[in-house]
Amino acid sequence: MIEPARITEVLDGRWRDLRRELRERMTDAKLADTLGLDVEAHRAQVFDQLKELARTRHPRLGFDPAYGGEGDVGGSVVAFQLLGYGDLSLMVKAGVQWGLFGGAIQMLGTERHHEKYLPGVMSLDLPGCFAMTESGHGSDVQHLRTTARYEAGEFIVDTPDDDARKDYIGNAARDGRLAVVFAQLIVGDRSYGVHAFVVPIRDDEGRPMPGVRIADCGPKAGLNGVDNGRLWFDGVRIPKENLLNRYGDVTDEGTYVSPIESDSRRFFTMLGTLVRGRISVAGSANSAAQRALTITVHRAESRRQFRRPDSDTEIQLMDYLAHQRKLLPALAKTYALNFAQDELVSMLHDVQSAPEPDPIAQRRLESRAAGIKAVATWHATSTIQTAREACGGAGYLADSTLPALKADTDVFTTFEGDNTVLLQLVAKGLLTDYRDNFADLSPLATARLVAEQLMGAVLERIAARQVIGRFDDDDLRSRAWHRSLFEDREQHVLAGLARRLRAAASSDADPFDVFNDAQDHVLLAGRAHIDRLILDAFAAAVEKCQDEEVRALLEQVCDLYALSAIEQDRAWFLEHGRITASGAKKVVAEVNALCKALRPHARTLVDAFGIPEQYLAW
Amino acid sequence: MIEPARITEVLDGRWRDLRRELRERMTDAKLADTLGLDVEAHRAQVFDQLKELARTRHPRLGFDPAYGGEGDVGGSVVAFQLLGYGDLSLMVKAGVQWGLFGGAIQMLGTERHHEKYLPGVMSLDLPGCFAMTESGHGSDVQHLRTTARYEAGEFIVDTPDDDARKDYIGNAARDGRLAVVFAQLIVGDRSYGVHAFVVPIRDDEGRPMPGVRIADCGPKAGLNGVDNGRLWFDGVRIPKENLLNRYGDVTDEGTYVSPIESDSRRFFTMLGTLVRGRISVAGSANSAAQRALTITVHRAESRRQFRRPDSDTEIQLMDYLAHQRKLLPALAKTYALNFAQDELVSMLHDVQSAPEPDPIAQRRLESRAAGIKAVATWHATSTIQTAREACGGAGYLADSTLPALKADTDVFTTFEGDNTVLLQLVAKGLLTDYRDNFADLSPLATARLVAEQLMGAVLERIAARQVIGRFDDDDLRSRAWHRSLFEDREQHVLAGLARRLRAAASSDADPFDVFNDAQDHVLLAGRAHIDRLILDAFAAAVEKCQDEEVRALLEQVCDLYALSAIEQDRAWFLEHGRITASGAKKVVAEVNALCKALRPHARTLVDAFGIPEQYLAW
Repeated sequence: MIEPARITEVLDGRWRDLRRELRERMTDAKLADTLGLDVEAHRAQVFDQLKELARTRHPRLGFDPAYGGEGDVGGSVVAFQLLGYGDLSLMVKAGVQWGLFGGAIQMLGTERHHEKYLPGVMSLDLPGCFAMTESGHGSDVQHLRTTARYEAGEFIVDTPDDDARKDYIGNAARDGRLAVVFAQLIVGDRSYGVHAFVVPIRDDEGRPMPGVRIADCGPKAGLNGVDNGRLWFDGVRIPKENLLNRYGDVTDEGTYVSPIESDSRRFFTMLGTLVRGRISVAGSANSAAQRALTITVHRAESRRQFRRPDSDTEIQLMDYLAHQRKLLPALAKTYALNFAQDELVSMLHDVQSAPEPDPIAQRRLESRAAGIKAVATWHATSTIQTAREACGGAGYLADSTLPALKADTDVFTTFEGDNTVLLQLVAKGLLTDYRDNFADLSPLATARLVAEQLMGAVLERIAARQVIGRFDDDDLRSRAWHRSLFEDREQHVLAGLARRLRAAASSDADPFDVFNDAQDHVLLAGRAHIDRLILDAFAAAVEKCQDEEVRALLEQVCDLYALSAIEQDRAWFLEHGRITASGAKKVVAEVNALCKALRPHARTLVDAFGIPEQYLAW
Repeated sequence: MIEPARITEVLDGRWRDLRRELRERMTDAKLADTLGLDVEAHRAQVFDQLKELARTRHPRLGFDPAYGGEGDVGGSVVAFQLLGYGDLSLMVKAGVQWGLFGGAIQMLGTERHHEKYLPGVMSLDLPGCFAMTESGHGSDVQHLRTTARYEAGEFIVDTPDDDARKDYIGNAARDGRLAVVFAQLIVGDRSYGVHAFVVPIRDDEGRPMPGVRIADCGPKAGLNGVDNGRLWFDGVRIPKENLLNRYGDVTDEGTYVSPIESDSRRFFTMLGTLVRGRISVAGSANSAAQRALTITVHRAESRRQFRRPDSDTEIQLMDYLAHQRKLLPALAKTYALNFAQDELVSMLHDVQSAPEPDPIAQRRLESRAAGIKAVATWHATSTIQTAREACGGAGYLADSTLPALKADTDVFTTFEGDNTVLLQLVAKGLLTDYRDNFADLSPLATARLVAEQLMGAVLERIAARQVIGRFDDDDLRSRAWHRSLFEDREQHVLAGLARRLRAAASSDADPFDVFNDAQDHVLLAGRAHIDRLILDAFAAAVEKCQDEEVRALLEQVCDLYALSAIEQDRAWFLEHGRITASGAKKVVAEVNALCKALRPHARTLVDAFGIPEQYLAW
């Protein structure tokens, strides 16, 4: 049997050393139990833990060395992922303070803001909020309705009505002193779109500042250690300097200036710099899935139920095919997402550490972050649900930690971007600025669409010949075959979608209806693209692996990931002639065979996640 | 637009009048909020509510008129279903007292028990537990290890070790005075299998009885108004009369007697009489799904997000195809399950009200109850999850009631029978006593298998000819076509499974391995059977509907149920030549078309559930 640590080495990836250090610190730290804490006690405990965390490397990792940070962007995300093994309220609270609030100041502010705020952000002397979402505008933040009107060297911040109150804001109900407030910047009669402003919301005694009203969102399904609240502003005056002015400013003469002309493009550029939060959520979702699987596989190896026929021996749960089917494909996908996440964090690190901005790399990063976040958080939700069921009544007791894992991660699928909206974003990105080009396709765009169509048709014919013509069992474990299926599906779905939208666009149809009628197609395009990226990341990591025994095992895990994904979507492959009916049945049988083959390694594979023992105690 | 009440009339089915009465009572009753209650306060509130409920018709419905009951078995289940609209802790607590505990006394006891206990059971003067599950034996209760040893006119009840403690027992931690304890009945050296005994666990002051140890299971994911606990027995002596002796007794001379010779058959006969609990869980799961859908459709009709291109109008969530896709097929399946449940409750009522036991009807009932329970509870879990996501951050706040719905119903998939085990039970039933006949098939069984094989092959050919040969769009809404697909799949999967098991049986393979290797096939057989029953129930209810406008609308809902089920499993239909690739694509397109067609009726369809307003307040 392979020593789990040898696999951990591979899973740990580029930030291997940091992970090792942080993991050791977690192992040494006293575990703060959340069981039986009421909302207020839980909030207090998490804030205390956050203060302790503020004294470690954690908050400094991602910030500029000029202000005491370490400038390790990727490392900062990895640190959040590791927090994902513990109480997720702490992870989210840390994410609000150092990721969202601190991140906005770093990315949208300029030197004067960095100097003034970053030390307090890191030390937690300045607890803060990221006040973007409003009750009426969550997904469509471009149209949020809080206003910041310029007037004689000041901005006056107002909440026009209850629909525009800031809602679900972490750190708002109890601890926040400052908030980065997103509001429509207005000079004279003209709005320049949404910008970010630093607004003090509480004084040193913790009382709301004049003109600021704060309410508590109350108990939530989970994450009750985070104090989410609502904010209303009534004529709150802040100095002009509180505008985070990297992408837009108002001169002393009262003129709006910006390096980016289009209000819309400017806003999305600003949003794009905040991608780190989304990536951190994806990472901690995967940590939570790892934890649920570890707990559940441990139990499935110790618990027995029903006797063997004609015997008094009872059967280990893990020996049932149905149990393997529940846990092992989920485990394989968790491995796949681990590697995809590592690649994503690397991209983020390189993009944000580059001396010059690279808009193409930035766009690729945003698209991938959106897609991986959607896939990883849905995977965590379904995996933790499966784990709970696989543990039966025991998994329903708070003691098992599964209820908290489940409740805490539930919101991951809709915060930091609703998953459905995110997948559409991915697809829209793939359709190369579909929205802009839709009404009147430029010659270049048209050419590209035609090329895609041809490409699709050609690929289709090749695939049909290759796959349907000669399908033999050896292919089932061929990575090249898996990749060709994933790639081909991606290309074909996208080309079909482009064709379909284009055909509809040339009719008189209402543009909303056109896009809306194709929404399931759009979502499929986004998902097919991300699935392919995930498989590529897993395959690349396996290929790179130097430890031959580990590599051989990971090849099987990667086979299981690929084949169970193909199995799940085999209707598509059948409909499009990519596999034959008998081929599809063989895929199902091979998933069963892989479950059987990997069953003896189940415990090794979960132990390789290296989750500190104290988070698995039950 | 159709008045929702006209649809309610159809949904309400056989127990229409009772539903109307109970619904009115719920509307009038003061809503007891659970928000912010800690575990102890919640338990106290639920116990108080239970006492109030004890003064209504509810507890009397299902019991023998000889002791003050109404003898309306079906009505008692319907009443539990309606409780499913409120705090599910109350539903479960009532289920423990009047369903499980009271039901065991009624079904397994004889006159002396009925006379002695039933009045107190109904009035709640005797709060009780149903102590079956042990830590080590949950699904495999036949092998639980608590013992009740006969000795000179008494039984001595013992917990041999911690693995055999009674676990997750509702009413045990706080309120129960009596428990129906399931234990191996031992006379002399011989065990006669599991029997039920009435064991006092607390005295009048609420202190544990001598020899009884009670512990609290502590906080759970949900249902915290129910006091689940653990029980240990150490030489607890109870009079011989406390044996619930309908199916087995010990004579005054100390001889074991029973009308059923086989220990195993006797135990499963006893279990079979307790089927009502499982049916009640299925019903309340569906009530919870209805409530989640109502809340979510209401929100999707009022909330808007993103503007129409070139317009300031924002789009209602319910107008997005992706949103319709999330909610409307789930709504259609909820309708289908409503009718399937009504049919199931009718079967239960008729079986348990019949003057003479009918073993064949009883077996059919048990199988259907197991299958509908599995499908309905999984459906509730996924629907409530979808609803939560469809409500975004708002759905994560406790205020929305979705968190409680989600957490409370989660355990439904594994209590009253683990769903995976239940579906296997269905399939095993279909394989006509597979286990008994496996080693040595009787001529009759062989003949049946062969007939099934032939039947499968013939159907396959007919289906291939009919469906592949001429597939036109009219068929998509043909109920006959839907039914032929569902029936054919059921037959084919079952025949294939029987063939496969038989082939393996004639080899030297280990019987456990044979069955285990086919476990995914087994689960599919169970599910295909139940899916067909559900479609049949829906189709029958639609056919019977006298209100033409309502019937026309329900036809579409039934189309959506059938087609979205076919869409979901279209890989199977493709693999087995039941639909062509282009036919499968048409099914997908038709589901979209039905979503569009039903979208204007979404609100009507949820309002027709008739859930009292106070349970929808948000």
